[in-house]
Amino acid sequence: MLESVNSPSDIRNLTPAQLRELCGEIRRYMIECCSTNPGHLGSSLGAVELCVALHYVLDTPKDKIVWDVGHQAYAHKIITGRREAFKENRKYKGLSGFPKMSESEYDSFGAGHTSTSISAALGMATSARMNGVQERVVAVIGDGAMTGGLAFEGLNNAGAMKSDLLVILNDNQISIDNNVGALHNYLMRISTSPAYNRLKNKIWNKLGNRSLRKFMQKVRFSTKLAFFKSGSVFEGLGFRYFGIIDGNDIEELVTTLDNIKDIKGPKLLHIHTVKGKGYKPAEQNQSVWHAPGKFNVETGERIVAKGPKRYKYQEIFGETVTELARKDERIVGITPAMASGCSLNIMMKEFPERTFDVGIAEQHAVTFSAGLAAGGMLPFCNIYSTFMQRAYDSIVHDVALQNLKVVFCIDRGGLVGEDGATHHGAFDMAYFRSIPNIAVAAPLNEVELRNMLYSATLPEYGAVAIRYPRGECEGLDWKKDFERIPLGKAELLRDGAKVAVLSVGTIGNRVAKAIEGFVADTGKNPIHYNMRFLKPLDTEAIDRACSLCDTIITVEDGTVVGGLHSAVSEYVAERGFNCRILKMGIPDRFVEQGKIDELLSECQYNTEDIRKIIEKSF
Amino acid sequence: MLESVNSPSDIRNLTPAQLRELCGEIRRYMIECCSTNPGHLGSSLGAVELCVALHYVLDTPKDKIVWDVGHQAYAHKIITGRREAFKENRKYKGLSGFPKMSESEYDSFGAGHTSTSISAALGMATSARMNGVQERVVAVIGDGAMTGGLAFEGLNNAGAMKSDLLVILNDNQISIDNNVGALHNYLMRISTSPAYNRLKNKIWNKLGNRSLRKFMQKVRFSTKLAFFKSGSVFEGLGFRYFGIIDGNDIEELVTTLDNIKDIKGPKLLHIHTVKGKGYKPAEQNQSVWHAPGKFNVETGERIVAKGPKRYKYQEIFGETVTELARKDERIVGITPAMASGCSLNIMMKEFPERTFDVGIAEQHAVTFSAGLAAGGMLPFCNIYSTFMQRAYDSIVHDVALQNLKVVFCIDRGGLVGEDGATHHGAFDMAYFRSIPNIAVAAPLNEVELRNMLYSATLPEYGAVAIRYPRGECEGLDWKKDFERIPLGKAELLRDGAKVAVLSVGTIGNRVAKAIEGFVADTGKNPIHYNMRFLKPLDTEAIDRACSLCDTIITVEDGTVVGGLHSAVSEYVAERGFNCRILKMGIPDRFVEQGKIDELLSECQYNTEDIRKIIEKSF
Repeated sequence: MLESVNSPSDIRNLTPAQLRELCGEIRRYMIECCSTNPGHLGSSLGAVELCVALHYVLDTPKDKIVWDVGHQAYAHKIITGRREAFKENRKYKGLSGFPKMSESEYDSFGAGHTSTSISAALGMATSARMNGVQERVVAVIGDGAMTGGLAFEGLNNAGAMKSDLLVILNDNQISIDNNVGALHNYLMRISTSPAYNRLKNKIWNKLGNRSLRKFMQKVRFSTKLAFFKSGSVFEGLGFRYFGIIDGNDIEELVTTLDNIKDIKGPKLLHIHTVKGKGYKPAEQNQSVWHAPGKFNVETGERIVAKGPKRYKYQEIFGETVTELARKDERIVGITPAMASGCSLNIMMKEFPERTFDVGIAEQHAVTFSAGLAAGGMLPFCNIYSTFMQRAYDSIVHDVALQNLKVVFCIDRGGLVGEDGATHHGAFDMAYFRSIPNIAVAAPLNEVELRNMLYSATLPEYGAVAIRYPRGECEGLDWKKDFERIPLGKAELLRDGAKVAVLSVGTIGNRVAKAIEGFVADTGKNPIHYNMRFLKPLDTEAIDRACSLCDTIITVEDGTVVGGLHSAVSEYVAERGFNCRILKMGIPDRFVEQGKIDELLSECQYNTEDIRKIIEKSF
Repeated sequence: MLESVNSPSDIRNLTPAQLRELCGEIRRYMIECCSTNPGHLGSSLGAVELCVALHYVLDTPKDKIVWDVGHQAYAHKIITGRREAFKENRKYKGLSGFPKMSESEYDSFGAGHTSTSISAALGMATSARMNGVQERVVAVIGDGAMTGGLAFEGLNNAGAMKSDLLVILNDNQISIDNNVGALHNYLMRISTSPAYNRLKNKIWNKLGNRSLRKFMQKVRFSTKLAFFKSGSVFEGLGFRYFGIIDGNDIEELVTTLDNIKDIKGPKLLHIHTVKGKGYKPAEQNQSVWHAPGKFNVETGERIVAKGPKRYKYQEIFGETVTELARKDERIVGITPAMASGCSLNIMMKEFPERTFDVGIAEQHAVTFSAGLAAGGMLPFCNIYSTFMQRAYDSIVHDVALQNLKVVFCIDRGGLVGEDGATHHGAFDMAYFRSIPNIAVAAPLNEVELRNMLYSATLPEYGAVAIRYPRGECEGLDWKKDFERIPLGKAELLRDGAKVAVLSVGTIGNRVAKAIEGFVADTGKNPIHYNMRFLKPLDTEAIDRACSLCDTIITVEDGTVVGGLHSAVSEYVAERGFNCRILKMGIPDRFVEQGKIDELLSECQYNTEDIRKIIEKSF
């Protein structure tokens, strides 16, 4: 049946039984595709019925669905004309793993980060009202994303504006790791209260036929009775609360959506879905199957690449911070809902009282860290680069301005690969550099990361941002004694003349490789500095490079607007050195998804590109 | 009595009657001081009893009070050893207008921006618990600040962590303008429900003596009964809710705080205060008296500077956007709770349906604008520079990445004067510059601001950030026909050779003045370009300047790390021009409060400084 679904209009005449069958087919197709071409399987499995029901009940694309994050929207993509394209999901030049306006008219708003959907949907509903357009707007948000402050800001505004907006709270009681926080506890209480559920079912069943139910909902009576007290937080915020219903029951979903879709004003429908639904292994280990990588569909065995296992930078962080915490009682670890992703879970096991998963709440993670620092602790606050963007003001206002010592561990700095444009850590070095009182560092490899984390605990260091990439390390033996890295001191990796390459971060390894080949082939010797710090900048190293060279090449795995190239250019321009300073790094545009190598080549700072520019400069 | 209060220990033996008298004295002193040395009077008048009661009941500075924003904390400053210093409130080298850790041990956490207190206090309470220190931590947050997402993130985490934390919700039902949003409506319902209030009083009175009441609160019985249903939003989030009580009744406050201060776990005390309390004019017009300027204490007349009135940049924005909205139906205006501050209230009067005060919620303001743009509208989203920091990720992820056309009107860019370090708009140009797909502009004067706002509506412009300062314009006749400003085109203000000054924004007027004097005195002719745009950068102008000069001086009223100096240096370094590029602007540190002239001189980019550097360069 799936093969004949080329747009939502193809499903609108199906019977309930056929819809159920279609969901099964979508699920199998999705599992099949993701088993060889990895993606965010878990959330999308849970939301199959929701995607189908929404397109069945609504008049898309005229009616608008705004997906929060977008992890859950694979079925949506598959039934909106992208079934075949889905085979290239997350691949270079293929489909984005997230909804994307430029990809389809059915993607009414792009996503990738959490908690944006209510605000965006409210804007769209408001536009529609002002333009006199009759369209329904639905925001679909997970219980994890609901803890982000932006979602609350959206609710608070929507609840007062009385726009015709439906928010679907897709509650699977899990974020990527287990969801945490008071709101989560509250939602759990709603859905696990037996008295409430008994009563709800009783009343609902008594209502009998559909038109009566519909009538009762319209007069806001059944809501009050059947769901009484259960949604008081949302009711308090001006939303009519409906739920909780089984979001994996396509019939119940369709009926409910049909009943409430034209009720005026802000409404919240609370549904319960099972992350990984319909695929046993994914249901049983939801965190792992959030994004499982390749796997064998039959056995559910995850396929791990062969060969000796390399450590990931994340593990170096996790192991090192744990080791440091053993010796230094001030050390605490903070993560906004990424404990396993960033490997803080290693410390969490050993020091559960000293690690804090604060939920999806980056601003809070930073301001909470500032409070901990004010209380005498030494917080290691680990946030993915792209999500750290959300904490920008907290970094400035709560940490830097008060000169509090927080160690920012910026995970997934630089290009991240298949997650694409919304997830690249492109801007961190640029925006951190202009904030006073915070040093900005990026290690060359796992040994340097480890030593930077250690050095950050020393009094020589104040607040510092240590930025490292997603994924595998260089394969060095890193389990060695700690060595202090002097603050702001670059490392001369290779000496020479005429051309100097200044790199920051792990991209320096590609630079070293490029230079190695170049030197072997030409006998010419460029200088290579591993800058280590973007701030404080090692001006002695730059002075030396400028005195020996006429061309300086800066290489950074971050935007070239505001990062290393800017820092070096500013200094050199002010000193009046007569050097040309060429730049390599993420260009001033958004970069889509793909393998790191593909993206580096596209952005022209892969090993070969580096070699070419050195060649040209000699 | 106030004269003998040099620290909170001096008030702890006072009788209730004496406390009441003390509050009166503090109020009079505060009014007296603010009448000649302007400040945030309204909020602080409302919170006198709260400040006194907290220091009376708590063991400060061992116990910690975290003030949100800090507008309301004047009485706190006055009774914690800063009574005399308060005369220099907000002055250069004087007291900060906000709590500040480096100023007093009683200021346990600094503030200025909203919504940070719960997160910071939770961090401090957590530290105390881990360190085995017995201390109480209290966060004081207004109902306006409570709408910021960060506050919700803090509540959500605190409600689940079970830390011993008291949040006092200081509800005066007003932000700076009237508070808006669903939470506000909810709080209003609580406090205005006659049935609820009657019941509450009845039960409370029946409880009779204090020890019984105390007991009842401890067993969480009176809470349930007396305040039943009223705090369900907060109860839902894991807080014990107490209130609502009269926060201007010192006795009720002291009794309540005393009763609940040692109850374990997260607690929220909801108090009602009157903004401007105790000073009639301030009570009657709360928005104006938020920060009234100088006034006559007896008559309540505000003292307006004599001489011809100059327009403010804010008014140019307000008038112009209204004028544009008349012709272009797509235009909508968005402000996060600053309608009168940014003068969007001008458009609000004429187009109430097309202007949106979304409450203190900068992230939402931007993502909501993105939603409006996706729906076909042309949003003018006006946010103060320092508060725009909070929306950084929304700018990147929801606007720029999707290439939606939002016009960011960045008010109060650059140094803002007396509000000080937390409020200077130092970083905007730097952080906007590294975001793709958004132009960054800063007008020289009111005519250019007006024409930029107009030009932004043309198809030539995509998303653009237009940044202008707080306060008075240059006094030009601005009510003229609109003129298109070509995107990315600089304006040659004066031609010459050898030295070129490139300025962006209104600081260019000081540059022009400096050059005028210099030319008159020396006959030498430097070049002066009003760059207008930081992005796209007018490289033709720079090429020309570099070909004619050996020294380029960049002048900007923003951080020199990442802004104009960086942009010009990057370009020049890459081209390999042999020019020295000197920088003038906000240095890489936080700048405190003072008059603009004082601060410019401290930062060495006032008119005289500019002249000096030109002289040296010739």
